[in-house]
Amino acid sequence: MFSRVLVRSAAVAARSARTARCAPMLRSVNLQAASLRPLHFSAVRLNKQCQKVAQVLESEVALEVEEDVQDLPESLQSFFDKTGFSAVASPGKNMAEITSKTARGETVHVFFDVAQVSNLPLESAELDGEAAAPSEEEEFDGMADNFANVNVVVVKDSDQSAVSFELLMNLQEGTFFVDSATPYSSAKAALDETAESEVSRELVYHGPPFSNLDEELQESLEAYLESRGINEELATFIGTYSEFKENKEYINWLKNMKTFFN
Amino acid sequence: MFSRVLVRSAAVAARSARTARCAPMLRSVNLQAASLRPLHFSAVRLNKQCQKVAQVLESEVALEVEEDVQDLPESLQSFFDKTGFSAVASPGKNMAEITSKTARGETVHVFFDVAQVSNLPLESAELDGEAAAPSEEEEFDGMADNFANVNVVVVKDSDQSAVSFELLMNLQEGTFFVDSATPYSSAKAALDETAESEVSRELVYHGPPFSNLDEELQESLEAYLESRGINEELATFIGTYSEFKENKEYINWLKNMKTFFN
Amino acid sequence: MFSRVLVRSAAVAARSARTARCAPMLRSVNLQAASLRPLHFSAVRLNKQCQKVAQVLESEVALEVEEDVQDLPESLQSFFDKTGFSAVASPGKNMAEITSKTARGETVHVFFDVAQVSNLPLESAELDGEAAAPSEEEEFDGMADNFANVNVVVVKDSDQSAVSFELLMNLQEGTFFVDSATPYSSAKAALDETAESEVSRELVYHGPPFSNLDEELQESLEAYLESRGINEELATFIGTYSEFKENKEYINWLKNMKTFFN
Repeated sequence: MFSRVLVRSAAVAARSARTARCAPMLRSVNLQAASLRPLHFSAVRLNKQCQKVAQVLESEVALEVEEDVQDLPESLQSFFDKTGFSAVASPGKNMAEITSKTARGETVHVFFDVAQVSNLPLESAELDGEAAAPSEEEEFDGMADNFANVNVVVVKDSDQSAVSFELLMNLQEGTFFVDSATPYSSAKAALDETAESEVSRELVYHGPPFSNLDEELQESLEAYLESRGINEELATFIGTYSEFKENKEYINWLKNMKTFFN
Repeated sequence: MFSRVLVRSAAVAARSARTARCAPMLRSVNLQAASLRPLHFSAVRLNKQCQKVAQVLESEVALEVEEDVQDLPESLQSFFDKTGFSAVASPGKNMAEITSKTARGETVHVFFDVAQVSNLPLESAELDGEAAAPSEEEEFDGMADNFANVNVVVVKDSDQSAVSFELLMNLQEGTFFVDSATPYSSAKAALDETAESEVSRELVYHGPPFSNLDEELQESLEAYLESRGINEELATFIGTYSEFKENKEYINWLKNMKTFFN
Repeated sequence: MFSRVLVRSAAVAARSARTARCAPMLRSVNLQAASLRPLHFSAVRLNKQCQKVAQVLESEVALEVEEDVQDLPESLQSFFDKTGFSAVASPGKNMAEITSKTARGETVHVFFDVAQVSNLPLESAELDGEAAAPSEEEEFDGMADNFANVNVVVVKDSDQSAVSFELLMNLQEGTFFVDSATPYSSAKAALDETAESEVSRELVYHGPPFSNLDEELQESLEAYLESRGINEELATFIGTYSEFKENKEYINWLKNMKTFFN
């Protein structure tokens, strides 16, 4: 249930597989020092704390709803129109999915984690276009932090066989690295989200480290992915779409939190 | 099935999500150099090894049972009496759970890993009160190692909706950091320990990094948690209770090991 | 679904629990700069990319099949003959399993990840016998990278009770470190590969850090493991067998990939 992740500059262990995050300190009161203070809060006091949270959430919701871009930003719609990709709705989930059909009878599924992508640290620096030259150490950290996982699963419509590609995306540079390619006999084996399927996929042989493959094989698989739409334009889309979906999720999160605290 | 964790000063990869641990070397015999030695051990020889383990385990059990504090230490009982929290038994498990009912019709569940907490490296140093000033590097390592995961799930009794808070606890300082807050429509979705529920929870959007939230929202959620008993006294309790439960688990572990080797 | 692993010299986050791997860049085309290029590839073009991959795969398969050692290498067969261990087939899986029966009515299961073992970086350097003296930093990295997880589960035939040992193997030195020992009331609880069993095993108390145990207990458990065949010869076997099985898996991977791209 708990995993430990070593981080360079902060000491944060995040539960489960979730990305480690730094968060400000919860200023806890030293009850031993303040021993006159009642230990059981009254219902009135407890209600007050809830109301305070609900009130802050309400003003946040109001603010966000006002600023919210209801419609799909033009750049996203234009990506869909040009590429033939379309979004698969996944409300409440971190994972976004887009799919397209190719002229060769394949379905291409692209998965990415909108929270991971929209929290890539250097992204806004690039967008601002005014990032100062980073120190060597920052550059290292930047590199380490500037990748997101992208999973591309191509299913052959005829026999439902599939190949799953684990990619790493450098959002700033708009580039992808292939981590592994794994063939599956069925789309279900490659795509199913049950715990059993997750465990099964972890046990499967995923091929040699991609960089150990024959160079011609690496290049032909990269060209294959590119011909299926895995390119810089997709990286740009993933960055923009992640911010769009993450903001929708954030607004729903605020609303769901507010419902709880009301 | 296997995961790799990079550690700073030692090279230890721990299986699954379990915490990496350093352990002394198993001094393996070089059988090629000692080629005259029989490769199949006889039943007699194999029995001897078992008996040796069983014998050591027996004296360890005797020692531990003698020293064992049967009753709940007074400080723990007094925490329960003062706060209204009570322990949920989880024999054989790392995870401890305490719960309380609030005057506002909520049930507060607090989860923590007793093996993780009782192995925090600096704890005993603090208890001894004689920790030498650590070097800068030790300080870094100490910081990195001095956090434990605490999960607080608050369920509203009326509609069973829930919010799950992932916290990091600094045991030495008695402080908590909020990592994330996630609303769930049901207590089951927030609490169920099946593999399917674990996977589902991992896929859910957990809100923005807590430190990115509006500052008033951060503060009101921290005050909310504090009013529900997430405070320095709880941190002290978690430290003491983890040592208490871990010792009980250790004695049972010795007994179960002994049963196997008998 | 996604986990983040910090690596020292490269920025690679691998999905799930899979080992992080470096892979060359997918040279993505800047479509904005090459805006005249058609965005929808024709079926002919898409077919060409598939054919190219299939063709490269075919020549790789031919090459590998020609070089393939069909029979078990003599050193592996001789290990099986001498030790009584035999292999449990696990086609398509990373995890290899060998088992043996002891004269004391126990079944010893040894599990290891052939992809992890056969990708240990320093292995070939040692085999070549001409590794240059590594710099201090390389030595650190080498240490960190030169361990593989080995899981030994001993089941008592009489009552099916079991103890699972998590070990770390240093392939170069042929040594094992004990990470933890966990008793289970049944072989099923210790061995079952369903998601539910995996989650259950993660929640179980695994004993104290092995190095915190009474020294006599550590030594007797190490001697026990050695008497059950956990020794330098096993480490050598695991290295050789992993390369053997990994190569078989690689050839099947090539064939399955080829089937997809044909």
